Amino acid sequence: PAGARPRRMANSKYEYVKDFELDDTLLPNCWIVVRIDGKGFTRFSELHKFEKPNDKRALDLMDACAKEVLNEFPDVRIAFGESDEYSFVLHKSAKLYGRRSSKIVSILVSCFSANYVRQWSNFFGNQPLSSTPMFDGRAILYPDVKTLRDYLTWRQVDTHINNQYNTCFWALVHQAGLSNAEAQATLKGTDTGAKNELLFSQFGINYTHLPEQFKKGSVIIRRHQEFVAKHQDDGTAVVRTRRVPVVMYCDIIKEQPFWSENADLLS
Amino acid sequence: PAGARPRRMANSKYEYVKDFELDDTLLPNCWIVVRIDGKGFTRFSELHKFEKPNDKRALDLMDACAKEVLNEFPDVRIAFGESDEYSFVLHKSAKLYGRRSSKIVSILVSCFSANYVRQWSNFFGNQPLSSTPMFDGRAILYPDVKTLRDYLTWRQVDTHINNQYNTCFWALVHQAGLSNAEAQATLKGTDTGAKNELLFSQFGINYTHLPEQFKKGSVIIRRHQEFVAKHQDDGTAVVRTRRVPVVMYCDIIKEQPFWSENADLLS
Amino acid sequence: PAGARPRRMANSKYEYVKDFELDDTLLPNCWIVVRIDGKGFTRFSELHKFEKPNDKRALDLMDACAKEVLNEFPDVRIAFGESDEYSFVLHKSAKLYGRRSSKIVSILVSCFSANYVRQWSNFFGNQPLSSTPMFDGRAILYPDVKTLRDYLTWRQVDTHINNQYNTCFWALVHQAGLSNAEAQATLKGTDTGAKNELLFSQFGINYTHLPEQFKKGSVIIRRHQEFVAKHQDDGTAVVRTRRVPVVMYCDIIKEQPFWSENADLLS
Amino acid sequence: PAGARPRRMANSKYEYVKDFELDDTLLPNCWIVVRIDGKGFTRFSELHKFEKPNDKRALDLMDACAKEVLNEFPDVRIAFGESDEYSFVLHKSAKLYGRRSSKIVSILVSCFSANYVRQWSNFFGNQPLSSTPMFDGRAILYPDVKTLRDYLTWRQVDTHINNQYNTCFWALVHQAGLSNAEAQATLKGTDTGAKNELLFSQFGINYTHLPEQFKKGSVIIRRHQEFVAKHQDDGTAVVRTRRVPVVMYCDIIKEQPFWSENADLLS
Repeated sequence: PAGARPRRMANSKYEYVKDFELDDTLLPNCWIVVRIDGKGFTRFSELHKFEKPNDKRALDLMDACAKEVLNEFPDVRIAFGESDEYSFVLHKSAKLYGRRSSKIVSILVSCFSANYVRQWSNFFGNQPLSSTPMFDGRAILYPDVKTLRDYLTWRQVDTHINNQYNTCFWALVHQAGLSNAEAQATLKGTDTGAKNELLFSQFGINYTHLPEQFKKGSVIIRRHQEFVAKHQDDGTAVVRTRRVPVVMYCDIIKEQPFWSENADLLS
Repeated sequence: PAGARPRRMANSKYEYVKDFELDDTLLPNCWIVVRIDGKGFTRFSELHKFEKPNDKRALDLMDACAKEVLNEFPDVRIAFGESDEYSFVLHKSAKLYGRRSSKIVSILVSCFSANYVRQWSNFFGNQPLSSTPMFDGRAILYPDVKTLRDYLTWRQVDTHINNQYNTCFWALVHQAGLSNAEAQATLKGTDTGAKNELLFSQFGINYTHLPEQFKKGSVIIRRHQEFVAKHQDDGTAVVRTRRVPVVMYCDIIKEQPFWSENADLLS
Repeated sequence: PAGARPRRMANSKYEYVKDFELDDTLLPNCWIVVRIDGKGFTRFSELHKFEKPNDKRALDLMDACAKEVLNEFPDVRIAFGESDEYSFVLHKSAKLYGRRSSKIVSILVSCFSANYVRQWSNFFGNQPLSSTPMFDGRAILYPDVKTLRDYLTWRQVDTHINNQYNTCFWALVHQAGLSNAEAQATLKGTDTGAKNELLFSQFGINYTHLPEQFKKGSVIIRRHQEFVAKHQDDGTAVVRTRRVPVVMYCDIIKEQPFWSENADLLS
Repeated sequence: PAGARPRRMANSKYEYVKDFELDDTLLPNCWIVVRIDGKGFTRFSELHKFEKPNDKRALDLMDACAKEVLNEFPDVRIAFGESDEYSFVLHKSAKLYGRRSSKIVSILVSCFSANYVRQWSNFFGNQPLSSTPMFDGRAILYPDVKTLRDYLTWRQVDTHINNQYNTCFWALVHQAGLSNAEAQATLKGTDTGAKNELLFSQFGINYTHLPEQFKKGSVIIRRHQEFVAKHQDDGTAVVRTRRVPVVMYCDIIKEQPFWSENADLLS
């Protein structure tokens, strides 16, 4: 609501329609994951000529939007993104919107979507945004740290599988000149080792040398950062620290070093 | 998801985390209302110097975003907006996202939010957008046309009450020089007649002459519109019709003329 | 709760555990169907030597329990039973337990289950009840009369299909001496006509002459009944009427005569 | 369902009504508490002349019914009862009915209610059961052992508060001849110490000497029990052990000795 509006709505005759608004409060003491997913991004990425298999501008834009979500919502402790999806983990004690599911999901999606447009030109320069980027979202609860960590592992394993597949696929299409169907047929049933071998022998690509952002996805957490809070009369800078979201491309499956170094994240 | 991604995720060890994704399908055969609401728009409107009590640019921007929602989602039959909120009515037979509540709410909010940024400059020109506009949403089910119509009535009665109050309030503040608290005290307990009398006697404002958009809010439905589909070889235009969303400022409480003229909306 | 118990529970330190009790209110203005289903009744019916394919004592006991549900809960307008299942239709305006789903389902199941034991000997005489009869339940909402009627039709069509099949099956087993597997194989893929033909030609059973209770299931509604309220001083009886649940075995698929004669049921 | 019924229900035209059965699966990996509560037990207890403040026969009957619930449902790890309510704790890994809430709640309530009638005469002898005992139920999820233990503590603290209050109340009514209202007024605002003092000085009752069942409620867990499985040819008994539900009246708030001795309960 906006402005000086008095929220009385003293029209008792119709107010009964509010009884149809059912409660969707999320169970307390559970970690809340909000996963958002691009709608129709295959078409969106073609329309905007995203590089295949990965467009660094598009991934950086995703990361920038996710950082804004962390700036707006302190309850978000960690975020993980890949391709056109992002997962936001809210602390199990989060009280945002009284833990009402649809409110939480929609406001995060709204923040992300509006930022996608706001920051588009920071990453795509003069290339116009020629259709509306849209994301849907959902909330998932994890009652304990183990299942939450398994969720994050699941997403990062997915990043690897997709990236490896897509790297092969687009090499076959762009460099070897195969059709999409031929590329798909070539890859069908191949395991991780065979795919790496194919990349190396046929295209000279060493998979392990590809950018970490493509192989691992993006992790966002908050880090202490020094900043100049003000200057004293004599000109000396007063330096303070604040916590700001930072993007990392690193393993979040193994305990070492990420989780041991960031033990407070899930405490 | 985007691109050539194979949606297999053949990592069975962690896939169990999907079991935590609970179903939130909405009951079939009920009208779905998705109501979205600006977050922190009091501050947002001050920051962007919205005119009080109504900023036509801001209302027109809201209407433009809502029109895009109708363009994207054919299931939306009618929308009603006022101030920083908008309600979208999806037909009771809507199958969008298998009627999963969080998906439907979030994608509509996403479409609206992204458009708010995309179209900002169409209405605010060079005035920069200096914070992120955000909206939350929720879904409400109405099992029959009567309760759905009562919902819409409830919102339009709310528009009237708020607009009349705000018109008085800001006249007292801006024209009579009262403080916010004094204006509030002056209006406390006054009924509709007294407010109109106050506007007329003290400020020369005839409430009934105010713009319909302010008094009634905005209604969006689809209307047949002719368009030139192509030109024949001899240059003759081939005119076809399509249904496009149009904004109206009219009464949706009474049967006549809106509902009788648009009987198909809720059939 | 029982007795003089003061429901304060002034132990604030632990009362936070109540926050985990989430709301499960059913959407207003929808018809509520509570369907209950015997648990392990194949074994229960063998243990108590129920006659196959239908044991009239068992069906009458089910009907008697369902009548008690109608006696206890005025919101139940109509009930339909077959075999070991019963559906109870609560009026769409029902306010029982504030429409909380688990409370409504459990109390109806409780009433039914307790009565099954209480009234067992009325139907099974001295035959002991040698295991605990149990029923599970669920609530289903229907937003309009059409879908509700289709639900009831679905159940009565099911009654017919099952009864016809079971009548054939047990004739083949008991009279023709087939094994269960042989009977099943014989019936596989036969349609309604073939089954009636089999019953008639092989066993001399005219399906249409079987008891209506077996073929149609049981319908319970309330009917006006006269009763002697008191006697006047001169001995004259004062007759009043009250509405009592009555069991009927009749078609509830067609409009005539059931629904036209009982139009008030679903109004 | 019962008997040879083929669960095909090949009547596609009406089967769409199944789409209205929405999923109510409980979040995995959470402890499930099903709490059941007597309906109208104030009246039920008066009708059956229960002793006040506690009727040992009625409490023993409740315990017997709860034991049957543990016999039927292995997922139930521990139960706690007081007055006319009982809480059943299902292990967080329970798969009963696919964790569908209404099924789980209703089947436990059904088992309890049917047993209440079945076992009535074991505790009340020839006194007839003159109305139907009914219980409602609900499911509550606790994501971790701490909150689950706090739930159990909450109930046992409640037992103490209610029992102490009721003991005072009925002493004032039965022994001191006060009216219900006078007894209530006398107790208003008194703390634990004052209530014990009142019991001792005015009625010679030492609260700590009251039966543990009244003060602590009933705890049910499973214990190993030896039984004679068979006899060998030479007549020697073959003794085996099985786990059977046992009722205890003990503190479940403190760690020692209950939880340390039964550490496996919540593992």
